[in-house]
Amino acid sequence: MIGILGTGQLSRMLALSTRHMGLEFTFYGEQITRSVGHLGNFIQGSYTDYERLRDFSSLCDVITFETENIPYQTVEFLESLKPVHPNSQSLKMTQDKIFEKVLFSKLEIPTPNYQLMNSLDEVKHFGAQYGYPFIIKKCKDGYDGKGVTKINNLAELIDFEFKPKESICEEYVKYDREISIIAINAIDGQRRYYDICQNTHRGGILIETRNQLDDPFFPIAKEYIDRLIDKLEYVGCITLELFQAGKTLLANEIAPRVHNSGHWTIEGAFTSQFENHIRAISGLPLGNSSSRDKVVMNNIIGNMLDLKQQLGNDLCFFHDYQKEPRPKRKLGHITTIIGS
Amino acid sequence: MIGILGTGQLSRMLALSTRHMGLEFTFYGEQITRSVGHLGNFIQGSYTDYERLRDFSSLCDVITFETENIPYQTVEFLESLKPVHPNSQSLKMTQDKIFEKVLFSKLEIPTPNYQLMNSLDEVKHFGAQYGYPFIIKKCKDGYDGKGVTKINNLAELIDFEFKPKESICEEYVKYDREISIIAINAIDGQRRYYDICQNTHRGGILIETRNQLDDPFFPIAKEYIDRLIDKLEYVGCITLELFQAGKTLLANEIAPRVHNSGHWTIEGAFTSQFENHIRAISGLPLGNSSSRDKVVMNNIIGNMLDLKQQLGNDLCFFHDYQKEPRPKRKLGHITTIIGS
Repeated sequence: MIGILGTGQLSRMLALSTRHMGLEFTFYGEQITRSVGHLGNFIQGSYTDYERLRDFSSLCDVITFETENIPYQTVEFLESLKPVHPNSQSLKMTQDKIFEKVLFSKLEIPTPNYQLMNSLDEVKHFGAQYGYPFIIKKCKDGYDGKGVTKINNLAELIDFEFKPKESICEEYVKYDREISIIAINAIDGQRRYYDICQNTHRGGILIETRNQLDDPFFPIAKEYIDRLIDKLEYVGCITLELFQAGKTLLANEIAPRVHNSGHWTIEGAFTSQFENHIRAISGLPLGNSSSRDKVVMNNIIGNMLDLKQQLGNDLCFFHDYQKEPRPKRKLGHITTIIGS
Repeated sequence: MIGILGTGQLSRMLALSTRHMGLEFTFYGEQITRSVGHLGNFIQGSYTDYERLRDFSSLCDVITFETENIPYQTVEFLESLKPVHPNSQSLKMTQDKIFEKVLFSKLEIPTPNYQLMNSLDEVKHFGAQYGYPFIIKKCKDGYDGKGVTKINNLAELIDFEFKPKESICEEYVKYDREISIIAINAIDGQRRYYDICQNTHRGGILIETRNQLDDPFFPIAKEYIDRLIDKLEYVGCITLELFQAGKTLLANEIAPRVHNSGHWTIEGAFTSQFENHIRAISGLPLGNSSSRDKVVMNNIIGNMLDLKQQLGNDLCFFHDYQKEPRPKRKLGHITTIIGS
């Protein structure tokens, strides 16, 4: 029995991608969702209800999570009871932008210049030093563009509601491409990488990913993600988002989980990120992660599209997360095979 | 909501292969099984309990079945309430070997010589005419080699427990290959075919299938299955098993459903037989049915194999139907990608 913290689309796809192997799932979350309905057992509880978490863990052989927005203390607690992958250390390091940035620096992984902001004066100083625009990012709880603000000029800065020690400032990078690399590390050290994902965001939300066969930046991206896996003693699927600016790759952020930019792997790779994550945390041999074809993955955001209309191309594959529509919410995705 | 009669591995794979599209399932059967547990709703009832069947149908937009061992009257009844695909006529024609044989003859699809047996004398006469060995097949309820007996000589015939009008005799064909063709016909007439499946049986049970890219017999097999689809006004996935003897293809039998010899399509084709069957009966556009790679599918029969051991090759994919082991029972399958 595999336990998953979270009841969203990533939990859904983790289960859907591996149920055929005879694996079974128990989901833990604040409320059951249609996304994971009929895919396993469900235990309702908050992430700070340690009694419920204990009940949950007693059902599980191994535990994982679908989101970094879970208190790392929850994962630490579960680690005292059952194997949990990735580990709480990895979660902690990726939950706080300043920890993440320090980790990049320590591992000599280039990243845009940054500074923890203790006062508005320091922010102004950052703007003066690195120029406008620059980025203010909340250290915690950001995702899909939330908690990220581009400051175009001093006037905007003065309007910005600044809270000391809760944000970092980050140099604005004029990048050529946004890419990500996804790797899987198994308990016994087997390691696999997916082809570089080339990503397009709109309003901070991923809208499209294309897998890049033979991307020239693959070797250096692989080197960086290897350093992270080794340092964090990471087990499972890990994603590193990067900016490519000229000949340089700059680390943007780590996701300690399967990632939206890897949804293309369901149809586009021999073994999906979801199946390989579950294999990795279950002590199973990893599956081949090579691309089978060139594919493009498009997110469905805000409003659901009509299944019938979207399947017009016979190499289109439609994924509906069965979520209630809401502005900016990811409701599904479509993967299209575009060549070999 | 899609209704499926049956709770075995085919129902399981129909649901597992299409849940990602946001489709939901209700299974109907005599008892709930682990195979379809946590994949949809379940209604318990016998196939002759018309009240329960009515309840079931009231939940469904469209209904299908996973096995031909359901009374066609059940499907006829459901047809009066909701769309059912394939239709009851197709089920009826494939439930009785003599109907099936007459259908082949009517459509000029070659098939081994056969005769409905009214008396033991007629059986003896058949043996004298076509020679030994020959085959006696029960007209009804046969699958996985059950109800099929090879009669090697007159002495064996005398020991055979003969029931008049329940069996056919069939010429024994010294075939070169056992193959099958699987096609999908949609409500609006879209039609797709999978590459020829080359099958190996042991004791009447399928043990291995290899997809045959560019098989020279594909065009004639396609012609035969087209005739069947047209005649039966068939909607959904249909399988025609054939013997290849020299330059001739001889029809063996029809399965009005997704078929074990098509399990390779999950990893081996762009769209699996399961997804395409569900697309076809739901009025959705069909997915591409071309092979992506050369694959081999091996059934796991009688005793479950160890998942970890079987995944040694990173292009192996393991399917566990979560059934209780029992001699000769199909418990799972493994598909291995062997080339492109």
